[in-house]
Amino acid sequence: MSRWHMLVLFFLAGTTAFSQNADSVFIKSISDEILTNGKAYENLRQLTKQIGGRLAGSPGMVKAEEWGLKKMQESGADKAWMQECMVPHWVRGGKDEAKASWNEPAKASSNKNSVKLVRSLDIIALGNSIGTGEKGITGEVLLINSFDELEKKKEEVKGKIVFYNYRFNDTYINTFLSYRDAGQYRGQGPSRAAKYGAKAVLVRSMTHAADNNPHTGATRYDSAYAKIPAAAIGLKDADQLSAQLQNNQVNVTLKTNGHFLPDTIGHNIIGELTGSAFPEEIITVGGHLDSWDNCEGAHDDGAGVVQTIEIMRAFKSLGYKPRRTIRFVLFANEENGGRGGAKYADEAKAKNEKHLFALESDAGGFTPRGLGLSGTEEQYQKFLTWRELIAPYGASEFNKGGGGSDIGPLSKAFNTATGSLNPDTQRYFDIHHARSDVFENVNKRELLLGAVNMAALIYLVDKYGL
Amino acid sequence: MSRWHMLVLFFLAGTTAFSQNADSVFIKSISDEILTNGKAYENLRQLTKQIGGRLAGSPGMVKAEEWGLKKMQESGADKAWMQECMVPHWVRGGKDEAKASWNEPAKASSNKNSVKLVRSLDIIALGNSIGTGEKGITGEVLLINSFDELEKKKEEVKGKIVFYNYRFNDTYINTFLSYRDAGQYRGQGPSRAAKYGAKAVLVRSMTHAADNNPHTGATRYDSAYAKIPAAAIGLKDADQLSAQLQNNQVNVTLKTNGHFLPDTIGHNIIGELTGSAFPEEIITVGGHLDSWDNCEGAHDDGAGVVQTIEIMRAFKSLGYKPRRTIRFVLFANEENGGRGGAKYADEAKAKNEKHLFALESDAGGFTPRGLGLSGTEEQYQKFLTWRELIAPYGASEFNKGGGGSDIGPLSKAFNTATGSLNPDTQRYFDIHHARSDVFENVNKRELLLGAVNMAALIYLVDKYGL
Repeated sequence: MSRWHMLVLFFLAGTTAFSQNADSVFIKSISDEILTNGKAYENLRQLTKQIGGRLAGSPGMVKAEEWGLKKMQESGADKAWMQECMVPHWVRGGKDEAKASWNEPAKASSNKNSVKLVRSLDIIALGNSIGTGEKGITGEVLLINSFDELEKKKEEVKGKIVFYNYRFNDTYINTFLSYRDAGQYRGQGPSRAAKYGAKAVLVRSMTHAADNNPHTGATRYDSAYAKIPAAAIGLKDADQLSAQLQNNQVNVTLKTNGHFLPDTIGHNIIGELTGSAFPEEIITVGGHLDSWDNCEGAHDDGAGVVQTIEIMRAFKSLGYKPRRTIRFVLFANEENGGRGGAKYADEAKAKNEKHLFALESDAGGFTPRGLGLSGTEEQYQKFLTWRELIAPYGASEFNKGGGGSDIGPLSKAFNTATGSLNPDTQRYFDIHHARSDVFENVNKRELLLGAVNMAALIYLVDKYGL
Repeated sequence: MSRWHMLVLFFLAGTTAFSQNADSVFIKSISDEILTNGKAYENLRQLTKQIGGRLAGSPGMVKAEEWGLKKMQESGADKAWMQECMVPHWVRGGKDEAKASWNEPAKASSNKNSVKLVRSLDIIALGNSIGTGEKGITGEVLLINSFDELEKKKEEVKGKIVFYNYRFNDTYINTFLSYRDAGQYRGQGPSRAAKYGAKAVLVRSMTHAADNNPHTGATRYDSAYAKIPAAAIGLKDADQLSAQLQNNQVNVTLKTNGHFLPDTIGHNIIGELTGSAFPEEIITVGGHLDSWDNCEGAHDDGAGVVQTIEIMRAFKSLGYKPRRTIRFVLFANEENGGRGGAKYADEAKAKNEKHLFALESDAGGFTPRGLGLSGTEEQYQKFLTWRELIAPYGASEFNKGGGGSDIGPLSKAFNTATGSLNPDTQRYFDIHHARSDVFENVNKRELLLGAVNMAALIYLVDKYGL
């Protein structure tokens, strides 16, 4: 592309609706402030490179909490505090390892015997899973492509290592649908296999990526069945293993070390700008501070964390005095317990707080495409009137349905309207819960634009209510 | 993000309008075909890794043309041919080099003399620029932050190397606006400096990226003034050079070798699916096959090339028989001459062809956000009626104004309506015309989705006219 005059027209067409009223002027000033002076990218660098992984209960969690509180204070909070909550403390306990072995049949032309081949698999234990013990578990692998197939082959499961090779669906445009679809195998797969006597489970990673990075995530044991070790396997290894299983018996030796330590103390980190007109009406905006241990948690959810802090910084920097109280919350333990979100709602209930709206960013620091809202029809209609003001900044798709797991409990407790930033979903599951979820895979402008669109919505809810 | 049930609602909301008529069913089949069996990504790997840079006149151009013709044939063209056109043949002629030197003043506490420091700069000659000659050009650097400043300092320019340090504007949301804004310094800068006697020009690269890769692109000499050598400089070096110039005189020795060889023969590569009902009505879809020499041209415009081929492949694979004739065109010489686009229109005029619509993809292989259309108001209104059918695949922003430099001549010749795929713009200028425009920076699904949205529009224009 060397000539741009045509392309420029698109933008102009998109902005004719950009009426020159006070709101559009202020939203432009938010955008300029964040795009020019934004600290979110540098803050993300600190969170990912100086702290890194920060699973509930880990030393990283403690460091991240201290860092978050300091950032809230530095960024101009009227008040900033840590809200204590007990969090689960699952540890990986060592390196996850797996080796596959099979007999390569002798060639017809050769008079040699068959040869035993052994190959390492790139795996990672699922969060909350139990370990195999020191010796590991060895067993024959049973290839299962779907739960339907599991039911058909249930007689063959006993004593085997079940390998769920369910593919991430390419045909959904929104990749969260592929994730919901395939995610069942991570969540329910181990117990469904244990029901028929499996001794361990391998799960194909939930991703479109063509690399071999395994993707972790929490599994949920059904208490009706034995807990068995479970691990995710990288895509290339999954493909090779399934190909090998077409012709050969394959045994796998799996060694994982996951276990729970006693629950420990974690914290939601909260910064507040106190409302000038209606301080009792609370607007919450947040992301989660914890991440899986095998990555930097840059997109998930470092992005939501630094965007949350950025919105406060920009409001302060612009001298904006909110009418309502805005709480900026870095939630604890989203990944493997959800205790932070629950605690935030519980304390709000105990104090009989009035929660008007909550907004969550937990779908990565990618270019913003839209905003979603769950609330009454009246609230949704009001939300739609703001579309023209926000769309020029990227979030042009205003959808019904929005929220997230950390603000879900607030919605249940108070019928609080909840919203979410909806970034583009195409690249999210390339890196989600994998070692490739690192700072280098976050684009500065995409990250900052997420904060711009969220800040614009928060400003409008603060000014006009919802 | 470990819980997704909320997020899924967004997608469902976005697809309620997805009426189950024949068009939506066929567009879904296009999408499934491309997302599941698409060859665009592997084709891009071949084009970038086996051929690489392919500037007009280069050996890469010749290889790319052969490759393009073969791909058209393999992908099922009813006819495929090469349309000859003369192209300019600019060559870089060697490695571009620059060294900055200045005297570091002696410290007050020291009795030593000042020290001369020399530092290499990461530069790349602008396309179409003349070289410095073997010995290079040495001169004092004059820092110029804008054309206004150039006019104010015009008396100081004579004999100097002008360094335009105009910043890429952070506040535009559509980065093509920042490019138009800063691009003037690349296009006009050398001649405007030559007017006042400058001996060479350095230009700050046009990018938001924080790396030091210099970004080339074509300059345009004004024949009223002397041609002087001109090069782009990486952002880090630009910042350091401008900082140094606050306190010190800096000399730069620039060595570039660019020159023109005689015009040579290049080709547009054309594949055609001949219309079954109205074969005389032609719809064109294309991207440009040439790229700068300093990169793989993966996004610019390898993406447009492989998307164009992909649409034909998908139509053939689905057994789609177009009513009108669809031409799939890989244009020659977009980057530094535009001869391919001009030739295509000239031949169409000479043959008195009937061109209904032309669609171009030349803004990178990023996630699609919209489609733009330039045409009559009636055509635009018809285009808008298709929005609901296409929006579920990503191109939800239907804008007035669309086209591109390769199909511009067709529009001029016939008033043909022109359209463009509008991908997200945030990352484009990170890599545009820089050595980082490589295959690894293209995401498979983002690339394929671009083809899906283009194919849907082509299908609708083919079926209903425009």
